[in-house]
Amino acid sequence: MRILAIESTARAASVALCEDGRLIGQYFQSSALTHSRTLLKMARDMLENLELTVSELDAVAVAAGPGSFTGVRIGVAAAKGLCWGADKPCVGVSTLEAMAWQCAGIGEGVICAAMDARRGEIYNALFEYSGGELKRLTPDRAVPLELIAGEAKNLKKTYFFVGDGGKLCYNKFLEAGLPADLPPEPLMLQTAWGVAKAAEGRTPVPALDLTPNYLRLSQAERERLEKLGTTNEI
Amino acid sequence: MRILAIESTARAASVALCEDGRLIGQYFQSSALTHSRTLLKMARDMLENLELTVSELDAVAVAAGPGSFTGVRIGVAAAKGLCWGADKPCVGVSTLEAMAWQCAGIGEGVICAAMDARRGEIYNALFEYSGGELKRLTPDRAVPLELIAGEAKNLKKTYFFVGDGGKLCYNKFLEAGLPADLPPEPLMLQTAWGVAKAAEGRTPVPALDLTPNYLRLSQAERERLEKLGTTNEI
Repeated sequence: MRILAIESTARAASVALCEDGRLIGQYFQSSALTHSRTLLKMARDMLENLELTVSELDAVAVAAGPGSFTGVRIGVAAAKGLCWGADKPCVGVSTLEAMAWQCAGIGEGVICAAMDARRGEIYNALFEYSGGELKRLTPDRAVPLELIAGEAKNLKKTYFFVGDGGKLCYNKFLEAGLPADLPPEPLMLQTAWGVAKAAEGRTPVPALDLTPNYLRLSQAERERLEKLGTTNEI
Repeated sequence: MRILAIESTARAASVALCEDGRLIGQYFQSSALTHSRTLLKMARDMLENLELTVSELDAVAVAAGPGSFTGVRIGVAAAKGLCWGADKPCVGVSTLEAMAWQCAGIGEGVICAAMDARRGEIYNALFEYSGGELKRLTPDRAVPLELIAGEAKNLKKTYFFVGDGGKLCYNKFLEAGLPADLPPEPLMLQTAWGVAKAAEGRTPVPALDLTPNYLRLSQAERERLEKLGTTNEI
Protein backbone atom coordinates (compact mmCIF):
# COMPACT_ATOMS: atom_id res chain seq x y z
CA MET A 1 0.00 0.00 0.00
CA ARG A 2 1.43 3.36 -1.09
CA ILE A 3 0.50 6.19 1.27
CA LEU A 4 1.18 9.91 1.00
CA ALA A 5 1.17 11.22 4.59
CA ILE A 6 0.67 14.84 5.64
CA GLU A 7 1.52 16.45 9.00
CA SER A 8 0.93 20.17 9.53
CA THR A 9 -0.53 20.45 13.02
CA ALA A 10 2.29 22.49 14.59
CA ARG A 11 5.03 24.91 13.54
CA ALA A 12 6.75 22.34 11.34
CA ALA A 13 5.10 20.65 8.38
CA SER A 14 6.08 17.47 6.60
CA VAL A 15 5.00 15.06 3.93
CA ALA A 16 6.10 11.44 3.56
CA LEU A 17 5.71 8.62 1.10
CA CYS A 18 5.55 5.11 2.54
CA GLU A 19 5.17 1.80 0.75
CA ASP A 20 3.98 -1.14 2.83
CA GLY A 21 5.36 0.52 5.93
CA ARG A 22 8.76 1.44 4.45
CA LEU A 23 9.75 5.11 4.30
CA ILE A 24 10.54 6.04 0.69
CA GLY A 25 10.67 9.81 1.06
CA GLN A 26 10.09 12.52 3.62
CA TYR A 27 10.19 16.28 3.30
CA PHE A 28 10.16 18.37 6.48
CA GLN A 29 10.09 22.13 6.86
CA SER A 30 10.06 24.33 9.96
CA SER A 31 10.41 27.87 8.71
CA ALA A 32 8.53 31.12 9.14
CA LEU A 33 6.54 30.42 5.96
CA THR A 34 2.91 29.31 6.38
CA HIS A 35 1.90 25.73 5.65
CA SER A 36 -0.69 26.96 3.17
CA ARG A 37 2.20 28.22 1.08
CA THR A 38 4.61 25.33 1.42
CA LEU A 39 2.75 22.07 2.16
CA LEU A 40 1.31 21.10 -1.22
CA LYS A 41 4.47 22.22 -3.00
CA MET A 42 6.48 19.89 -0.77
CA ALA A 43 4.15 17.01 -1.66
CA ARG A 44 4.33 17.82 -5.37
CA ASP A 45 8.14 18.14 -5.36
CA MET A 46 8.56 14.89 -3.44
CA LEU A 47 6.26 12.87 -5.71
CA GLU A 48 7.92 14.36 -8.78
CA ASN A 49 11.40 13.54 -7.46
CA LEU A 50 10.22 9.98 -6.76
CA GLU A 51 8.84 9.81 -10.29
CA LEU A 52 5.35 9.18 -8.96
CA THR A 53 2.02 10.79 -9.69
CA VAL A 54 -1.00 11.28 -7.42
CA SER A 55 -2.85 8.65 -9.47
CA GLU A 56 -0.32 6.05 -8.28
CA LEU A 57 -1.15 6.58 -4.58
CA ASP A 58 -3.43 4.16 -2.75
CA ALA A 59 -4.45 6.64 -0.04
CA VAL A 60 -3.62 9.93 1.62
CA ALA A 61 -3.14 9.97 5.40
CA VAL A 62 -3.29 13.14 7.45
CA ALA A 63 -2.82 14.20 11.06
CA ALA A 64 -6.39 15.34 11.71
CA GLY A 65 -5.75 16.92 15.11
CA PRO A 66 -5.40 17.95 17.78
CA GLY A 67 -2.98 20.80 17.11
CA SER A 68 -2.88 24.38 15.92
CA PHE A 69 -6.34 25.22 14.51
CA THR A 70 -4.91 26.73 11.36
CA GLY A 71 -2.39 23.93 10.92
CA VAL A 72 -4.99 21.17 11.32
CA ARG A 73 -7.35 22.96 8.92
CA ILE A 74 -4.66 23.31 6.26
CA GLY A 75 -3.60 19.66 6.50
CA VAL A 76 -7.13 18.24 6.50
CA ALA A 77 -8.28 20.59 3.72
CA ALA A 78 -5.24 19.68 1.59
CA ALA A 79 -5.86 15.95 2.12
CA LYS A 80 -9.60 16.24 1.37
CA GLY A 81 -9.01 18.34 -1.72
CA LEU A 82 -6.29 16.07 -3.06
CA CYS A 83 -8.34 12.92 -2.43
CA TRP A 84 -11.50 14.37 -3.87
CA GLY A 85 -9.74 15.63 -6.96
CA ALA A 86 -7.79 12.44 -7.58
CA ASP A 87 -10.57 10.10 -6.44
CA LYS A 88 -8.49 8.54 -3.68
CA PRO A 89 -9.56 7.49 -0.17
CA CYS A 90 -8.02 9.05 2.91
CA VAL A 91 -7.22 8.22 6.52
CA GLY A 92 -7.33 10.77 9.33
CA VAL A 93 -5.19 9.84 12.31
CA SER A 94 -4.63 11.32 15.76
CA THR A 95 -1.70 13.75 15.76
CA LEU A 96 -0.75 12.42 19.19
CA GLU A 97 -0.73 8.79 18.09
CA ALA A 98 1.44 9.72 15.09
CA MET A 99 3.89 11.42 17.48
CA ALA A 100 3.98 8.38 19.74
CA TRP A 101 4.95 6.12 16.81
CA GLN A 102 8.14 8.14 16.40
CA CYS A 103 9.29 7.03 19.83
CA ALA A 104 8.18 3.41 19.55
CA GLY A 105 11.03 1.36 21.00
CA ILE A 106 12.60 4.22 22.95
CA GLY A 107 12.67 2.22 26.18
CA GLU A 108 10.55 0.72 28.94
CA GLY A 109 7.87 3.15 30.08
CA VAL A 110 5.10 5.45 28.95
CA ILE A 111 5.24 7.51 25.74
CA CYS A 112 3.67 10.86 26.56
CA ALA A 113 2.72 12.84 23.44
CA ALA A 114 2.49 16.49 24.42
CA MET A 115 1.67 19.56 22.37
CA ASP A 116 1.58 23.00 23.94
CA ALA A 117 -2.13 23.91 23.71
CA ARG A 118 -1.65 27.32 25.44
CA ARG A 119 -4.06 28.52 28.15
CA GLY A 120 -2.17 26.33 30.66
CA GLU A 121 -3.10 23.13 28.84
CA ILE A 122 -1.42 20.34 26.93
CA TYR A 123 -2.89 18.29 24.12
CA ASN A 124 -1.95 14.89 25.39
CA ALA A 125 -2.34 11.15 25.13
CA LEU A 126 -0.37 8.35 26.76
CA PHE A 127 0.83 5.17 25.06
CA GLU A 128 2.89 2.08 25.74
CA TYR A 129 4.83 0.25 23.05
CA SER A 130 5.78 -3.37 23.11
CA GLY A 131 6.14 -6.21 20.62
CA GLY A 132 5.46 -3.97 17.63
CA GLU A 133 2.15 -2.75 19.05
CA LEU A 134 1.31 0.73 20.30
CA LYS A 135 -1.22 0.51 23.13
CA ARG A 136 -3.26 3.60 23.90
CA LEU A 137 -3.65 4.34 27.63
CA THR A 138 -5.80 7.50 27.37
CA PRO A 139 -7.95 9.21 24.75
CA ASP A 140 -6.67 12.41 23.11
CA ARG A 141 -7.40 15.22 25.55
CA ALA A 142 -6.65 18.84 26.46
CA VAL A 143 -5.56 18.80 30.10
CA PRO A 144 -3.49 20.85 32.56
CA LEU A 145 0.09 19.74 32.97
CA GLU A 146 -0.60 19.09 36.64
CA LEU A 147 -3.08 16.36 35.75
CA ILE A 148 -0.46 14.49 33.69
CA ALA A 149 2.06 14.72 36.54
CA GLY A 150 -0.61 13.62 39.01
CA GLU A 151 -1.40 10.48 36.99
CA ALA A 152 2.31 9.69 36.71
CA LYS A 153 2.63 9.59 40.51
CA ASN A 154 0.27 6.61 40.51
CA LEU A 155 1.71 4.87 37.42
CA LYS A 156 5.33 4.89 38.72
CA LYS A 157 6.80 4.42 35.22
CA THR A 158 9.36 6.45 33.27
CA TYR A 159 7.69 8.94 30.93
CA PHE A 160 9.27 9.67 27.52
CA PHE A 161 8.08 13.01 26.16
CA VAL A 162 7.57 13.81 22.51
CA GLY A 163 6.20 16.98 20.93
CA ASP A 164 6.54 20.74 21.31
CA GLY A 165 5.07 20.49 24.82
CA GLY A 166 7.55 17.76 25.74
CA LYS A 167 10.20 19.94 27.38
CA LEU A 168 7.53 21.75 29.42
CA CYS A 169 6.29 18.41 30.77
CA TYR A 170 9.81 17.07 31.27
CA ASN A 171 10.79 20.06 33.43
CA LYS A 172 7.59 19.73 35.46
CA PHE A 173 8.32 16.03 36.05
CA LEU A 174 11.90 16.75 37.15
CA GLU A 175 10.62 19.40 39.61
CA ALA A 176 8.16 16.86 41.00
CA GLY A 177 10.85 14.16 41.24
CA LEU A 178 9.09 11.91 38.74
CA PRO A 179 11.07 9.58 36.39
CA ALA A 180 11.23 11.28 32.98
CA ASP A 181 13.33 11.26 29.83
CA LEU A 182 13.57 13.19 26.58
CA PRO A 183 14.24 11.23 23.39
CA PRO A 184 17.03 12.23 20.97
CA GLU A 185 16.36 15.55 19.24
CA PRO A 186 15.26 14.16 15.84
CA LEU A 187 12.34 12.37 17.53
CA MET A 188 11.00 15.38 19.43
CA LEU A 189 8.92 16.86 16.62
CA GLN A 190 6.08 15.09 14.85
CA THR A 191 6.63 14.02 11.25
CA ALA A 192 4.55 12.63 8.42
CA TRP A 193 6.35 9.28 8.87
CA GLY A 194 4.49 8.90 12.19
CA VAL A 195 1.23 9.72 10.42
CA ALA A 196 1.87 6.97 7.87
CA LYS A 197 2.69 4.50 10.68
CA ALA A 198 -0.53 5.38 12.51
CA ALA A 199 -2.50 4.97 9.27
CA GLU A 200 -1.15 1.46 8.55
CA GLY A 201 -3.90 -1.13 8.69
CA ARG A 202 -6.67 1.46 9.03
CA THR A 203 -9.51 1.39 6.52
CA PRO A 204 -9.43 4.53 4.36
CA VAL A 205 -12.65 6.54 4.03
CA PRO A 206 -14.04 8.72 1.22
CA ALA A 207 -12.53 12.22 1.25
CA LEU A 208 -15.81 13.88 2.22
CA ASP A 209 -16.09 11.78 5.40
CA LEU A 210 -12.77 13.03 6.80
CA THR A 211 -13.25 15.45 9.71
CA PRO A 212 -10.73 17.29 11.86
CA ASN A 213 -10.57 16.78 15.60
CA TYR A 214 -9.84 20.08 17.31
CA LEU A 215 -10.59 18.86 20.87
CA ARG A 216 -11.33 22.46 21.90
CA LEU A 217 -13.23 25.41 20.49
CA SER A 218 -11.18 27.93 18.55
CA GLN A 219 -10.42 31.30 20.14
CA ALA A 220 -12.98 33.04 17.90
CA GLU A 221 -15.72 30.53 18.77
CA ARG A 222 -14.86 30.75 22.47
CA GLU A 223 -15.04 34.53 22.47
CA ARG A 224 -18.35 34.48 20.65
CA LEU A 225 -19.83 32.08 23.21
CA GLU A 226 -18.46 34.16 26.07
CA LYS A 227 -20.18 37.22 24.62
CA LEU A 228 -23.41 35.23 24.37
CA GLY A 229 -23.04 34.38 28.07
CA THR A 230 -22.29 30.69 27.71
CA THR A 231 -18.92 28.97 28.11
CA ASN A 232 -19.93 25.49 26.97
CA GLU A 233 -17.02 23.68 25.40
CA ILE A 234 -17.57 21.10 22.70
CA MET B 1 25.48 30.08 10.65
CA ARG B 2 23.36 28.70 7.82
CA ILE B 3 24.49 25.27 6.62
CA LEU B 4 23.25 23.16 3.74
CA ALA B 5 24.07 19.56 4.66
CA ILE B 6 24.31 16.63 2.26
CA GLU B 7 24.24 12.90 3.07
CA SER B 8 24.40 10.32 0.28
CA THR B 9 26.73 7.62 1.57
CA ALA B 10 24.21 4.75 1.60
CA ARG B 11 20.97 3.73 -0.12
CA ALA B 12 19.09 6.79 1.18
CA ALA B 13 20.07 10.35 0.42
CA SER B 14 19.09 13.51 2.22
CA VAL B 15 19.70 17.23 2.36
CA ALA B 16 19.07 19.53 5.31
CA LEU B 17 19.16 23.21 6.06
CA CYS B 18 20.22 24.20 9.58
CA GLU B 19 20.54 27.67 11.09
CA ASP B 20 22.69 27.94 14.22
CA GLY B 21 22.01 24.31 15.00
CA ARG B 22 18.24 24.46 14.42
CA LEU B 23 16.72 22.23 11.72
CA ILE B 24 14.82 24.39 9.24
CA GLY B 25 14.27 21.83 6.52
CA GLN B 26 15.15 18.27 5.62
CA TYR B 27 14.43 16.23 2.52
CA PHE B 28 15.05 12.49 2.60
CA GLN B 29 14.69 9.94 -0.16
CA SER B 30 15.28 6.19 -0.20
CA SER B 31 14.09 5.01 -3.59
CA ALA B 32 15.55 2.98 -6.42
CA LEU B 33 16.64 6.18 -8.19
CA THR B 34 20.34 7.04 -8.09
CA HIS B 35 21.59 9.92 -5.96
CA SER B 36 23.20 11.50 -9.02
CA ARG B 37 19.69 11.98 -10.36
CA THR B 38 17.90 13.10 -7.20
CA LEU B 39 20.34 14.73 -4.77
CA LEU B 40 20.89 18.18 -6.25
CA LYS B 41 17.24 18.46 -7.24
CA MET B 42 16.29 17.81 -3.61
CA ALA B 43 18.66 20.58 -2.49
CA ARG B 44 17.33 22.98 -5.10
CA ASP B 45 13.67 22.24 -4.28
CA MET B 46 14.28 22.62 -0.55
CA LEU B 47 16.13 25.95 -0.85
CA GLU B 48 13.46 27.23 -3.25
CA ASN B 49 10.65 26.20 -0.90
CA LEU B 50 12.48 27.94 1.97
CA GLU B 51 12.81 31.02 -0.23
CA LEU B 52 16.60 30.84 0.01
CA THR B 53 19.32 30.93 -2.61
CA VAL B 54 22.74 29.28 -2.58
CA SER B 55 24.31 32.72 -2.16
CA GLU B 56 22.62 33.00 1.25
CA LEU B 57 24.37 29.89 2.63
CA ASP B 58 27.38 30.21 4.91
CA ALA B 59 28.76 26.75 4.16
CA VAL B 60 27.96 23.34 2.72
CA ALA B 61 28.56 20.28 4.89
CA VAL B 62 28.82 16.78 3.49
CA ALA B 63 29.24 13.24 4.76
CA ALA B 64 32.66 12.55 3.22
CA GLY B 65 32.78 8.84 4.01
CA PRO B 66 33.04 6.07 4.78
CA GLY B 67 30.16 4.54 2.83
CA SER B 68 29.23 3.31 -0.62
CA PHE B 69 31.99 4.43 -3.01
CA THR B 70 29.52 5.79 -5.53
CA GLY B 71 27.41 7.45 -2.85
CA VAL B 72 30.39 9.16 -1.19
CA ARG B 73 31.69 10.32 -4.57
CA ILE B 74 28.35 11.82 -5.56
CA GLY B 75 27.94 13.67 -2.26
CA VAL B 76 31.49 15.02 -2.15
CA ALA B 77 31.45 15.96 -5.83
CA ALA B 78 28.11 17.75 -5.44
CA ALA B 79 29.38 19.67 -2.39
CA LYS B 80 32.66 20.60 -4.06
CA GLY B 81 30.94 21.71 -7.24
CA LEU B 82 28.30 23.73 -5.44
CA CYS B 83 30.89 25.40 -3.19
CA TRP B 84 33.28 26.12 -6.00
CA GLY B 85 30.54 27.56 -8.20
CA ALA B 86 28.98 29.68 -5.48
CA ASP B 87 32.27 30.59 -3.80
CA LYS B 88 31.30 29.05 -0.46
CA PRO B 89 33.45 27.06 1.96
CA CYS B 90 32.63 23.48 2.88
CA VAL B 91 32.99 21.02 5.74
CA GLY B 92 33.54 17.31 5.26
CA VAL B 93 32.47 15.19 8.21
CA SER B 94 32.70 11.52 9.10
CA THR B 95 29.57 9.65 8.01
CA LEU B 96 29.82 7.61 11.20
CA GLU B 97 30.02 10.64 13.47
CA ALA B 98 26.98 12.15 11.70
CA MET B 99 25.09 8.89 12.35
CA ALA B 100 26.07 8.92 16.01
CA TRP B 101 24.65 12.44 16.46
CA GLN B 102 21.22 11.10 15.53
CA CYS B 103 21.25 8.90 18.62
CA ALA B 104 22.74 11.46 21.00
CA GLY B 105 20.72 11.13 24.21
CA ILE B 106 19.38 7.64 23.47
CA GLY B 107 20.52 6.29 26.84
CA GLU B 108 23.52 5.32 28.93
CA GLY B 109 26.03 3.36 26.89
CA VAL B 110 28.01 3.27 23.68
CA ILE B 111 26.67 4.53 20.35
CA CYS B 112 27.92 2.12 17.71
CA ALA B 113 27.67 3.52 14.17
CA ALA B 114 27.64 0.59 11.78
CA MET B 115 27.41 0.47 8.00
CA ASP B 116 27.42 -2.81 6.13
CA ALA B 117 30.75 -2.65 4.25
CA ARG B 118 30.29 -6.13 2.65
CA ARG B 119 33.19 -8.62 2.50
CA GLY B 120 32.40 -9.55 6.13
CA GLU B 121 33.25 -6.08 7.41
CA ILE B 122 31.50 -3.15 9.02
CA TYR B 123 32.39 0.52 8.67
CA ASN B 124 32.35 1.41 12.31
CA ALA B 125 33.19 3.91 15.01
CA LEU B 126 32.18 4.03 18.67
CA PHE B 127 31.01 7.10 20.57
CA GLU B 128 29.68 8.12 23.96
CA TYR B 129 27.35 11.05 24.45
CA SER B 130 26.97 13.04 27.62
CA GLY B 131 26.35 16.66 28.57
CA GLY B 132 25.84 17.77 24.99
CA GLU B 133 29.21 16.39 23.88
CA LEU B 134 29.86 13.45 21.59
CA LYS B 135 33.06 11.71 22.61
CA ARG B 136 34.79 9.53 20.03
CA LEU B 137 36.09 6.21 21.38
CA THR B 138 37.61 4.83 18.16
CA PRO B 139 38.67 6.17 14.76
CA ASP B 140 36.54 5.36 11.69
CA ARG B 141 37.53 1.87 10.61
CA ALA B 142 36.55 -1.13 8.47
CA VAL B 143 36.54 -4.13 10.80
CA PRO B 144 34.98 -7.59 11.12
CA LEU B 145 31.83 -7.76 13.22
CA GLU B 146 33.62 -10.16 15.56
CA LEU B 147 36.12 -7.47 16.52
CA ILE B 148 33.32 -5.10 17.60
CA ALA B 149 31.70 -7.85 19.69
CA GLY B 150 35.09 -8.74 21.17
CA GLU B 151 35.72 -5.16 22.32
CA ALA B 152 32.23 -4.99 23.82
CA LYS B 153 33.01 -7.98 26.07
CA ASN B 154 35.67 -5.86 27.75
CA LEU B 155 33.71 -2.59 27.84
CA LYS B 156 30.63 -4.13 29.54
CA LYS B 157 28.31 -1.31 28.42
CA THR B 158 25.04 -1.35 26.46
CA TYR B 159 25.61 -0.76 22.74
CA PHE B 160 23.06 1.26 20.75
CA PHE B 161 23.34 0.50 17.04
CA VAL B 162 22.67 2.96 14.25
CA GLY B 163 23.08 2.52 10.50
CA ASP B 164 22.31 -0.09 7.86
CA GLY B 165 24.72 -2.50 9.57
CA GLY B 166 23.01 -1.94 12.91
CA LYS B 167 20.65 -4.92 12.83
CA LEU B 168 23.49 -7.23 11.79
CA CYS B 169 25.54 -6.11 14.80
CA TYR B 170 22.54 -6.21 17.12
CA ASN B 171 21.78 -9.84 16.23
CA LYS B 172 25.42 -10.78 16.71
CA PHE B 173 25.42 -9.14 20.15
CA LEU B 174 22.22 -10.95 21.18
CA GLU B 175 23.76 -14.28 20.09
CA ALA B 176 26.85 -13.50 22.16
CA GLY B 177 24.75 -12.48 25.19
CA LEU B 178 26.05 -8.89 25.07
CA PRO B 179 23.85 -5.95 26.18
CA ALA B 180 22.49 -4.28 23.03
CA ASP B 181 19.61 -2.09 21.91
CA LEU B 182 18.20 -0.72 18.67
CA PRO B 183 16.95 2.88 18.65
CA PRO B 184 13.48 3.78 17.32
CA GLU B 185 13.15 3.25 13.56
CA PRO B 186 13.44 6.93 12.48
CA LEU B 187 16.95 7.07 14.01
CA MET B 188 18.31 3.97 12.30
CA LEU B 189 19.30 5.59 9.01
CA GLN B 190 21.75 8.45 8.62
CA THR B 191 20.36 11.86 7.66
CA ALA B 192 21.74 15.21 6.62
CA TRP B 193 20.65 16.61 10.00
CA GLY B 194 23.38 14.50 11.62
CA VAL B 195 25.86 15.85 9.07
CA ALA B 196 24.94 19.42 10.02
CA LYS B 197 25.30 18.56 13.74
CA ALA B 198 28.75 17.06 13.15
CA ALA B 199 29.77 20.14 11.15
CA GLU B 200 28.79 22.61 13.87
CA GLY B 201 31.80 24.43 15.23
CA ARG B 202 34.15 23.03 12.58
CA THR B 203 36.14 25.46 10.48
CA PRO B 204 35.01 25.27 6.84
CA VAL B 205 37.70 24.78 4.17
CA PRO B 206 37.92 25.88 0.53
CA ALA B 207 36.00 23.54 -1.80
CA LEU B 208 39.13 22.24 -3.48
CA ASP B 209 40.59 21.04 -0.16
CA LEU B 210 37.67 18.72 0.56
CA THR B 211 38.60 15.05 0.13
CA PRO B 212 36.55 11.88 0.54
CA ASN B 213 37.49 9.22 3.06
CA TYR B 214 36.83 5.79 1.59
CA LEU B 215 38.72 3.84 4.31
CA ARG B 216 39.18 0.97 1.82
CA LEU B 217 40.18 0.59 -1.80
CA SER B 218 37.32 0.31 -4.28
CA GLN B 219 36.57 -3.07 -5.85
CA ALA B 220 38.12 -1.97 -9.16
CA GLU B 221 41.33 -0.77 -7.47
CA ARG B 222 41.51 -3.92 -5.36
CA GLU B 223 41.13 -6.17 -8.40
CA ARG B 224 43.78 -4.23 -10.27
CA LEU B 225 46.25 -4.59 -7.39
CA GLU B 226 45.45 -8.29 -7.08
CA LYS B 227 46.24 -8.75 -10.77
CA LEU B 228 49.51 -6.90 -10.22
CA GLY B 229 50.32 -9.32 -7.42
CA THR B 230 50.02 -6.96 -4.48
CA THR B 231 47.19 -6.73 -1.96
CA ASN B 232 48.30 -3.63 -0.10
CA GLU B 233 45.35 -1.69 1.27
CA ILE B 234 45.46 2.06 1.65
